[in-house]
Amino acid sequence: MGFVVSLRMSKVFSYDQLFDFAKAVFEKIGSNEEDAVLATRVLLSADVRGVDSHGIARLSGYIRLWDAKRINANPQIKILHQTPSTATVDGDSGLGLVVAPRAMQMAIDKAKQVGTGWVSVQNSNHFGIAGYHSMMALEEDMIGISMTNASPLVAPTFSIERLLGTNPICVAIPAGSQPPFVADLATTTAANGKLEILQRKSGVAPLGWIQDKEGKASTDPHELKAGGALLPLGGDREHGSHKGYALGAIVDIFSAVLSGANYGPWVPPFPAYVPMPTNMPGKGIGHFFGAMRIDAFRPANEFKQHMDQWIERFRAAKTSNGFERVIIPGDPERQMEEVRMEKGIPLLGPVVNDLQYLAEKFNIALPVSRS
Amino acid sequence: MGFVVSLRMSKVFSYDQLFDFAKAVFEKIGSNEEDAVLATRVLLSADVRGVDSHGIARLSGYIRLWDAKRINANPQIKILHQTPSTATVDGDSGLGLVVAPRAMQMAIDKAKQVGTGWVSVQNSNHFGIAGYHSMMALEEDMIGISMTNASPLVAPTFSIERLLGTNPICVAIPAGSQPPFVADLATTTAANGKLEILQRKSGVAPLGWIQDKEGKASTDPHELKAGGALLPLGGDREHGSHKGYALGAIVDIFSAVLSGANYGPWVPPFPAYVPMPTNMPGKGIGHFFGAMRIDAFRPANEFKQHMDQWIERFRAAKTSNGFERVIIPGDPERQMEEVRMEKGIPLLGPVVNDLQYLAEKFNIALPVSRS
Repeated sequence: MGFVVSLRMSKVFSYDQLFDFAKAVFEKIGSNEEDAVLATRVLLSADVRGVDSHGIARLSGYIRLWDAKRINANPQIKILHQTPSTATVDGDSGLGLVVAPRAMQMAIDKAKQVGTGWVSVQNSNHFGIAGYHSMMALEEDMIGISMTNASPLVAPTFSIERLLGTNPICVAIPAGSQPPFVADLATTTAANGKLEILQRKSGVAPLGWIQDKEGKASTDPHELKAGGALLPLGGDREHGSHKGYALGAIVDIFSAVLSGANYGPWVPPFPAYVPMPTNMPGKGIGHFFGAMRIDAFRPANEFKQHMDQWIERFRAAKTSNGFERVIIPGDPERQMEEVRMEKGIPLLGPVVNDLQYLAEKFNIALPVSRS
Repeated sequence: MGFVVSLRMSKVFSYDQLFDFAKAVFEKIGSNEEDAVLATRVLLSADVRGVDSHGIARLSGYIRLWDAKRINANPQIKILHQTPSTATVDGDSGLGLVVAPRAMQMAIDKAKQVGTGWVSVQNSNHFGIAGYHSMMALEEDMIGISMTNASPLVAPTFSIERLLGTNPICVAIPAGSQPPFVADLATTTAANGKLEILQRKSGVAPLGWIQDKEGKASTDPHELKAGGALLPLGGDREHGSHKGYALGAIVDIFSAVLSGANYGPWVPPFPAYVPMPTNMPGKGIGHFFGAMRIDAFRPANEFKQHMDQWIERFRAAKTSNGFERVIIPGDPERQMEEVRMEKGIPLLGPVVNDLQYLAEKFNIALPVSRS
């Protein structure tokens, strides 16, 4: 039923239609073709994998940051410092959608040489879906790791101030005959995108997702815009929120204190209309990437055989009543990708309106939806 | 009040008293002096830091594993495979208390050469408190990472089978004038040690810590011994338990699928009386260690200055009513260490009885408690 309603309220576009449109937009702001293709590929990988909050719905947000001169469409990405297994990269205020895969590629290249590669990035912007970057490692028979800090929305345990972003961690691990293991998780109880859905329909949030401005547990999704905060994974101290807070803190430190980006409450906000913090200690937002060659530890075929056994055992686990099977991280997104590459990508009305705004701004034809 | 009761029921020993005793026990099973000192240091670092479940309370458990010929007191720790930044290590069934710090030292040595070092370990045993190993990196101006898999007690989201251990992750990060950031967390809502405390006093567990054998949420801590399971961090799907499950899975894969140790339901149980699983796919239990030189990314003094600012900002955060301050990961353990090094380490009656058993078994004098 919910599905029928959402189809009625949305229009469906093919991947290729949205690809051509987004690429044209990036070229209009001055990206060269190679960067425009890369940014589009990263952006749309969120849409096809069902992470709608990080896909083309954000395109107008990136453009508003470019309008505000906070995004440089022609970044000169530089290595500031390096060792055989590490690098610190200056993203030159580029689109995170371009800076991130370039930095991940550096990590992969270092892993080819010395077994692993680790790259911390300063002076970047929102990098889209973390999974894209980690998954670049898979085709090289490597484990890929990506993380980023983000605008402060999350209160550490016991605090009423928002000091951390939803700071996601993604780990992608290759398997053999099984599809890869891809865990991509915000270090909060619920990702901000889920809150936004509840806000739109004025729904009730489960206890443990948010607190109000006084730090009291709340079920009202609008509290977030009234001085409240998202809660770290765990929700409250009794349920381990100090662990979610610690994980978000580690992401912040690896991404920004290590690289020279902004951290904690000083991370630049994504919406271009929100004023920048004062006394910023670094440059832009920060990311952290890792690549580990499987055969730096054991022969890749042996590893993959055991990954298959791991996945098959977990997938075959006995379930509680009412649940069909245990999910392997990455399964739902892969299944969504199969569906959307075939049947198209549904976009909600407000997202289509945003694309219409971009079409007019840049004089590009908006694709004709299938429905 | 609880404190008075627990003092009445416990005896207090000095660090040095327990050090001499544990070292003597390890020497009696055949460890050389260097290994006995190392194992004792790791073991007691849990007691002084207040992680009582991983300290001298486990000494008799290690000895029972040695009795069962599952621990080799004279391991020949071998590198099976390596690259400039990685190694795979065979612990030769040694005490994890010895194998783990040796493997962490290899990671540190590799980081000195190429910026970072990463070591996966097979054929080991319980490695004590994760924090000890990560914190070895601090004095070298490195970030230290340690993790281990453990006997299966945790059900993945939607499952009624126990397929993962409490699989902890520890990350230790140096600061300047501030003490280091040390996050040491089981990837479950509550560590097993907290359940054991509730079991002893037949208390009520918060919802979200455990489920019964049918997968229903339970508050009865005894359910764990009646076919129930600990729950991944998050507790249930609505509160993000799929994230805790994914984190525990990553620890399992890095520690064991990468190294050739046992994983998932095949991890050997810690209690020597529990039969070993059948068809084990690897050797012993697995660990994973990492060391990242700070100055492989930016000058260490710059990094430390920003870590100080990070810590000071979070410590100064406005708190909810009733909470004095936001805690920086590592604060409580460091404060406990100061108290216990001065006032001694309290041990509960059953733990003292276990030491008495070891004293008689090996003909060693039990130290005289202070109270």
